[in-house]
Amino acid sequence: MRLLYEENIADIAIGAAVLGTGGGGNPYTGYLTGREAIRKYGPVKLCSLDEMDDDDLVIPTAGMGAPTVSNEKLPNGIDIINSLKTLEKYLGKEVKATMSIEVGGGNSTTPIQVAAELGIPLVDCDGMGRAYPELQMVTHSMYGISATPMTIADERGNILILETISNKWTEVIGRSITIDMGGRGMIALYAATVGQLKEAAIIGSMTLAENIGRTVRLARQQEENPVEAVRKAVNGFTIFEGKIADVNRKTTTGFARGNLHISGFGQFNHQELVINFQNEFLVASIDGKFVATTPDLISVLDLETGEPITTEVLRYGMRVAVLAYSCDKKWQTPAGIELVGPRYFGYDVDYVPVEETYGG
Amino acid sequence: MRLLYEENIADIAIGAAVLGTGGGGNPYTGYLTGREAIRKYGPVKLCSLDEMDDDDLVIPTAGMGAPTVSNEKLPNGIDIINSLKTLEKYLGKEVKATMSIEVGGGNSTTPIQVAAELGIPLVDCDGMGRAYPELQMVTHSMYGISATPMTIADERGNILILETISNKWTEVIGRSITIDMGGRGMIALYAATVGQLKEAAIIGSMTLAENIGRTVRLARQQEENPVEAVRKAVNGFTIFEGKIADVNRKTTTGFARGNLHISGFGQFNHQELVINFQNEFLVASIDGKFVATTPDLISVLDLETGEPITTEVLRYGMRVAVLAYSCDKKWQTPAGIELVGPRYFGYDVDYVPVEETYGG
Repeated sequence: MRLLYEENIADIAIGAAVLGTGGGGNPYTGYLTGREAIRKYGPVKLCSLDEMDDDDLVIPTAGMGAPTVSNEKLPNGIDIINSLKTLEKYLGKEVKATMSIEVGGGNSTTPIQVAAELGIPLVDCDGMGRAYPELQMVTHSMYGISATPMTIADERGNILILETISNKWTEVIGRSITIDMGGRGMIALYAATVGQLKEAAIIGSMTLAENIGRTVRLARQQEENPVEAVRKAVNGFTIFEGKIADVNRKTTTGFARGNLHISGFGQFNHQELVINFQNEFLVASIDGKFVATTPDLISVLDLETGEPITTEVLRYGMRVAVLAYSCDKKWQTPAGIELVGPRYFGYDVDYVPVEETYGG
Repeated sequence: MRLLYEENIADIAIGAAVLGTGGGGNPYTGYLTGREAIRKYGPVKLCSLDEMDDDDLVIPTAGMGAPTVSNEKLPNGIDIINSLKTLEKYLGKEVKATMSIEVGGGNSTTPIQVAAELGIPLVDCDGMGRAYPELQMVTHSMYGISATPMTIADERGNILILETISNKWTEVIGRSITIDMGGRGMIALYAATVGQLKEAAIIGSMTLAENIGRTVRLARQQEENPVEAVRKAVNGFTIFEGKIADVNRKTTTGFARGNLHISGFGQFNHQELVINFQNEFLVASIDGKFVATTPDLISVLDLETGEPITTEVLRYGMRVAVLAYSCDKKWQTPAGIELVGPRYFGYDVDYVPVEETYGG
């Protein structure tokens, strides 16, 4: 167990936004959310699963919606507490801790706010090791943990409890509700015991996010190359450098969907990289050839500062580096590929681990 | 208190479909639902509010969706029981009776099924005295009774509990959920005590529906004019007779929306009547002039048999009579007109009671 103070939150938000692969929430608004909660309620206990009892109930807390909306329609802080407390009451069992369901600039700091306000620990794990656009895309789904009962609340006071027959159904119905709520709702879901999480969750992701964030900060302080520092921290590959030439982005069916064109420079001169996204960066191709795909991670970083650039802030003219790196091994199984592989998203290509493409 | 037997159900379904003004469910599938439940579980007790205790909890049960869908995607009977039992458990209070939230061929027989299966009485009242397309359009809304907590279930086993800040929000979010469920969900909502209902509900609507249905049946048996018999029973006006010349119907945003053109014959020769509908018939105009509007009732009847024709079965060539008649007085108040008047639905016309137009 260790305590997370105000100064840890900035590192976590930045590192989580790197791993968020374009989604998972904006790191700046996420940072503010976490910081304000810690200023008001004091530091948050970050625990490992091993430090808790196997029977302890953990309920993840998160925002659900399109990043384009979430960055302008901020939660009011009451919504997520309403969501968690309603689910706890519905389950009739005391919640002992919260956690991130995905790693992201917002979805790693939302549970920090909840933990601070309710005085419960945050568990150092999540359900993706990155961010994905749809609710069923968590390792929990591969271990038989139900997304429901799930609660979804808005800032006005509307709240729903969902009980669905599959985690995919949770996504379908939950997504429509976020649209009615204005494009974003605050959710509590995937209630599980510590014992279940030891098997199903991705371990240590808060600490990993914090380490990546610290790396960016220190590299800048020491005037080192922050992109290269991140690349080393994630054990990845710099697959492209260039200038954003075009962004096609549409907020539709509850997601920010679109693509991003980058004109290469330096060693990538005269090449074009295209990234397709649905909240998160899903597939990258250079001159028409796929070079990295989900479930591997694709991050777009500001070339000078190493700051991760999320889907909703991409714009023409930004000078960026694109990193690609390996996902958690759980995603490389047949069940993982079925859940989040490129074909699920409609791309007619087999998953080739990025190490095979670039590690040679 | 009296018992409803198999033979009462056909009359109720037909009469309710007259009052359903095009919506509220198909009377034939509604009849089958009610009949099968009574065959299996025995007759249903129909009670007046006065025969119950003021503290007794009553939960209405209904289908929510587009008639075009509901007539093909039939409930499996488990869904509506799941909805009511889940709401009862959530409220933590025993349900003593169910009722119709609206009068309609399906929504008057769904609570008969529930009452039969659960062995609870059906209360002789509803929240509209007719059918309306949207959830908040009940007299309950004018008396401060909340639609939520509401449950909505589908035939697969998905179920949601809604808690919203207004009855209009219940409609907005609930409608999206019906769309995800395939265009129809089975709901329990507007939980209220008998004491509340004595003030807020429209009294005697099951009996009224049955009387109208019986009138149609007897007129046919006695070879009288069934349209004229219905007109007398509802104390209304035959505003048109003719042949359906065109039906524009689209199932969109969870509703069956469209309009209906009727070419007049007999005394209406060379005239055209147009009815606009959103699940229910909302406004009727002859040669471009409004002659009847919501909240007054507009019913389309088969000219020969007096059978009510619901939105989803309208088709070219049908020979029909159109009746218009007065709504319950509760709807003629400023609050009622705000909730269900023609301007709510986007028609730029003031409500003129049909008696003023035709009663002179």
